[in-house]
Amino acid sequence: MFESAEIAHKVKKSVYKKAVPALRAALLEAQVDLYEGKKMPVVLLISGQDGAGKSETINLLYEWMDPRFLSTLAFSLPSEEERERPPMWRYWHALPPKGRIGIFAGSWYSDTIRERILGNISLQEVDAHADQINRFEAMLVNEGALVLKFWFHLTRDAQKKRLKDLESDPHTAWRVTKWNWERLKTHDKLQEVAGHFLRMTNTPWAPWVVVDGSDDCYRSLTVGQTLLRAMRARLDRPHAPSAAVTPLVRADIDGRNVLSVLNQQLSLTQDHYENELALWQGRLAELSRSPAFKHRAVVCAFEGSDAAGKGGAIRRVCAALDARLYQVVPIAAPTDEERAQPHLWRFWRHLPRHGHITLFDRTWYGRVLVERVEGFCQEHDWLRAYTEINDFEHELAEAGTIVVKFWLQISQDEQLRRFKEREEIAFKRFKITQEDWRNREKWDAYQQAVCDMVDRTSTGTAPWTLVEANDKKYARIKILRTLCERLEAELQTPPSKQAVVRAKKIAKSEKSGKTDKPRKAGKDKNKNKPAAVELEPDEKT
Amino acid sequence: MFESAEIAHKVKKSVYKKAVPALRAALLEAQVDLYEGKKMPVVLLISGQDGAGKSETINLLYEWMDPRFLSTLAFSLPSEEERERPPMWRYWHALPPKGRIGIFAGSWYSDTIRERILGNISLQEVDAHADQINRFEAMLVNEGALVLKFWFHLTRDAQKKRLKDLESDPHTAWRVTKWNWERLKTHDKLQEVAGHFLRMTNTPWAPWVVVDGSDDCYRSLTVGQTLLRAMRARLDRPHAPSAAVTPLVRADIDGRNVLSVLNQQLSLTQDHYENELALWQGRLAELSRSPAFKHRAVVCAFEGSDAAGKGGAIRRVCAALDARLYQVVPIAAPTDEERAQPHLWRFWRHLPRHGHITLFDRTWYGRVLVERVEGFCQEHDWLRAYTEINDFEHELAEAGTIVVKFWLQISQDEQLRRFKEREEIAFKRFKITQEDWRNREKWDAYQQAVCDMVDRTSTGTAPWTLVEANDKKYARIKILRTLCERLEAELQTPPSKQAVVRAKKIAKSEKSGKTDKPRKAGKDKNKNKPAAVELEPDEKT
Repeated sequence: MFESAEIAHKVKKSVYKKAVPALRAALLEAQVDLYEGKKMPVVLLISGQDGAGKSETINLLYEWMDPRFLSTLAFSLPSEEERERPPMWRYWHALPPKGRIGIFAGSWYSDTIRERILGNISLQEVDAHADQINRFEAMLVNEGALVLKFWFHLTRDAQKKRLKDLESDPHTAWRVTKWNWERLKTHDKLQEVAGHFLRMTNTPWAPWVVVDGSDDCYRSLTVGQTLLRAMRARLDRPHAPSAAVTPLVRADIDGRNVLSVLNQQLSLTQDHYENELALWQGRLAELSRSPAFKHRAVVCAFEGSDAAGKGGAIRRVCAALDARLYQVVPIAAPTDEERAQPHLWRFWRHLPRHGHITLFDRTWYGRVLVERVEGFCQEHDWLRAYTEINDFEHELAEAGTIVVKFWLQISQDEQLRRFKEREEIAFKRFKITQEDWRNREKWDAYQQAVCDMVDRTSTGTAPWTLVEANDKKYARIKILRTLCERLEAELQTPPSKQAVVRAKKIAKSEKSGKTDKPRKAGKDKNKNKPAAVELEPDEKT
Repeated sequence: MFESAEIAHKVKKSVYKKAVPALRAALLEAQVDLYEGKKMPVVLLISGQDGAGKSETINLLYEWMDPRFLSTLAFSLPSEEERERPPMWRYWHALPPKGRIGIFAGSWYSDTIRERILGNISLQEVDAHADQINRFEAMLVNEGALVLKFWFHLTRDAQKKRLKDLESDPHTAWRVTKWNWERLKTHDKLQEVAGHFLRMTNTPWAPWVVVDGSDDCYRSLTVGQTLLRAMRARLDRPHAPSAAVTPLVRADIDGRNVLSVLNQQLSLTQDHYENELALWQGRLAELSRSPAFKHRAVVCAFEGSDAAGKGGAIRRVCAALDARLYQVVPIAAPTDEERAQPHLWRFWRHLPRHGHITLFDRTWYGRVLVERVEGFCQEHDWLRAYTEINDFEHELAEAGTIVVKFWLQISQDEQLRRFKEREEIAFKRFKITQEDWRNREKWDAYQQAVCDMVDRTSTGTAPWTLVEANDKKYARIKILRTLCERLEAELQTPPSKQAVVRAKKIAKSEKSGKTDKPRKAGKDKNKNKPAAVELEPDEKT
């Protein structure tokens, strides 16, 4: 949920100053069109971490737009009058009419998040409330509203830094109270609760827009541009569709995204690779034979650009497994039989039973990747697929299946090199087709689809791991290691004594025989983790 | 939920025999079109009370249609293989492909209902599962499926009778086991659990069709006709709409409905009326001043045909109340301000706080009555309104507000008489307009809308009371009494001593001074309830 907001976005002040006048003019124009057309109300939710710039943003919107047609609705604890009516009463009361923008500072999300952090309500109650909210927002959208929900995200360190910065400036020191510092302690808990709650309420009709709150210029431009685009998309469309959908609207201000920040320089020497391969394959074999695994199952999803090395990575995983216990399912175009069924049917049919592993070479994400980009299905179909996929993986996890998902990313140059190689080497020629060259032309569209996919489907129970795959050796080891570590955590099976001894031997052989600085493996894990971004938000927070 | 199935439907054998050949031919034709077009799969759920004819119906469908393109999928407890995968796996496995009809005997509903009856899961878990099912079925429908869900209903007595009938016939005696008789004991519990679960899963995209299971001919024709209509509606529509909706499809075979079975002969003499009026108005005054009411609120909804006497009834209720504590809200066409908001907004704004009563003269049901019939809103708008209204009333009930809903029904003749009277009597002339005469022409469409409304929105927490209103006096007393009894139950405030004494005095005065057989009131309530149908299913079951 928060991946895209954790890669240190930044917009230079000079860029910001240059962009604002045009943005203001366009926002004002959209506001006038909104007011004159009276076609819809705009419901704008501003929420997120303390110190992430919620009130600054609201003030800025007032500065940029015409305050006569804006209203801010701030909610804290309910009054006595409000408590004597259903909880939603005060929000209904505050809804903006058609033609106006209502900014909600505090909303129907706040109470549940607060009560859950305090431990007053169960996860089931949170889910029940998420369901209620989804129905409420569906009603709003069906009644014509544009619902935009912003979540301003800060990592724990960034939150600390912002509070310190505010405190050190005499102009803003008054904003920071003891209460804010207290709240810092609950940062991680808030991330966990919000991560789940946001995912449950991230619907096609009212999606969340998660914004990095640490840089003022970036945050302000993102909110302004996103609001503008969403309003224009609705204002310029003569009739609202019957299945109301809010388009994916996140404005990509600084060009940074979860893929562009991957460090494609990461690589391994041949020796180091062979040592690590032995280590992790041994560990995987051990884990797959552990008693705890007899009551669990594993689903591995491999996705990646063309020629990113999925097949090779899968072979390295399989090499460690008993052939009776795993199955590799390559996903190509659906068969006739599969086409006559819902799009997830062909994955359901291959689900492993206990003690088994299924490796999918391409997956159910086809719908939000190739089908989206190539236009094989309609927008409302791939939009609803995010929720369907999350539900699917949630059902798997609920039943004890461990879901591990890899995206293998290579650079455009590396892809070109591999394509050419494939054309030249006889036994690789079958691997390259005209279609591959065509797909390559849509590189940017695919990258955007991958970013949206990660934002919307990287969850606590089924996180995405993005793999820097320009170096095949590095990629294979990262995949094996991630899989082992995940299994270790899920099965609560630490390495056996033999494994530890083996790891030590390997480490020793490396020390003596190498000149490059090898990464050690084994117990000393954290120290040796590569610097690359690991995308498991709920584990982090 | 079960109202329409509790009014003793019956189709004569001769009528049935005459109707079947054409129905069979049409069903076969639809099946061929389905198979050749391969546009969609049909998912048919057959569920309900034991002995209500589930397997008979499935056998009949096999007899009527081409069994090559039908499959029956019977589910009982999951096998070991099934238990080692997510619970929905076996249902995914069994989904019919496009072009075929899959009949599910036992389905994704069965486990939850069974576990809830056994007390193994909480109401929250039931609701969570309902949410999961709704998403699953939405996915099916979005993927093109026609989802039809039948629930065969039997009252407890009817179930007993059916079991006895089956047992006494040597041809069918084998069908009845000790287990069935055991299950009879859980009839009421099943009704309660199913009533809630069905309401939570009664969506516009996959609505329930509740069928009276007591008469074989009626049940068979209803299922056949409903299936035929639903298939034809989809087959004859070239493109599925993006917001997939299954039309309201219940076939009205025998012309009986919850309105037609009302006994419009019920009436009260003037004396009796005055006594009862004093009695119940006194009781209502007492209840509204009770300490328990200080923490509750009441919302009274009055709907009815034109000239059915809503205003007069409301005045008789208000006469018993402290003017500071109640508010009458007449609902006419929405104001400009209201039109700029979601359709439920104008009702939310008038919600009473604790200790107060709001009486709505016409209500939020306008959308599924006048707006539906007159075409003021589109089909998908009034279809989604049922769910929105149930959510609204559920939120009210959750917050402690007591929701009491009356539909005042008069016959067409009586309406004509009253219209004419209004035109003749000077002070009543303002009450009759050209619009009233126009509405009258749409009598049947309105009656259908009312039946659908009752089926879909009469819930355990907010049941409909249908009032036989040809006699104004009878109607007013029924309304006052229902309101008092509901408040008494909710506030757990039995009548005071004075009230009991008053009731006795009134009863005595009646005995001495009357020639007609008066209904007594007071403690001896049950005996004196009028014979009319009372529509509070969840209280009954």
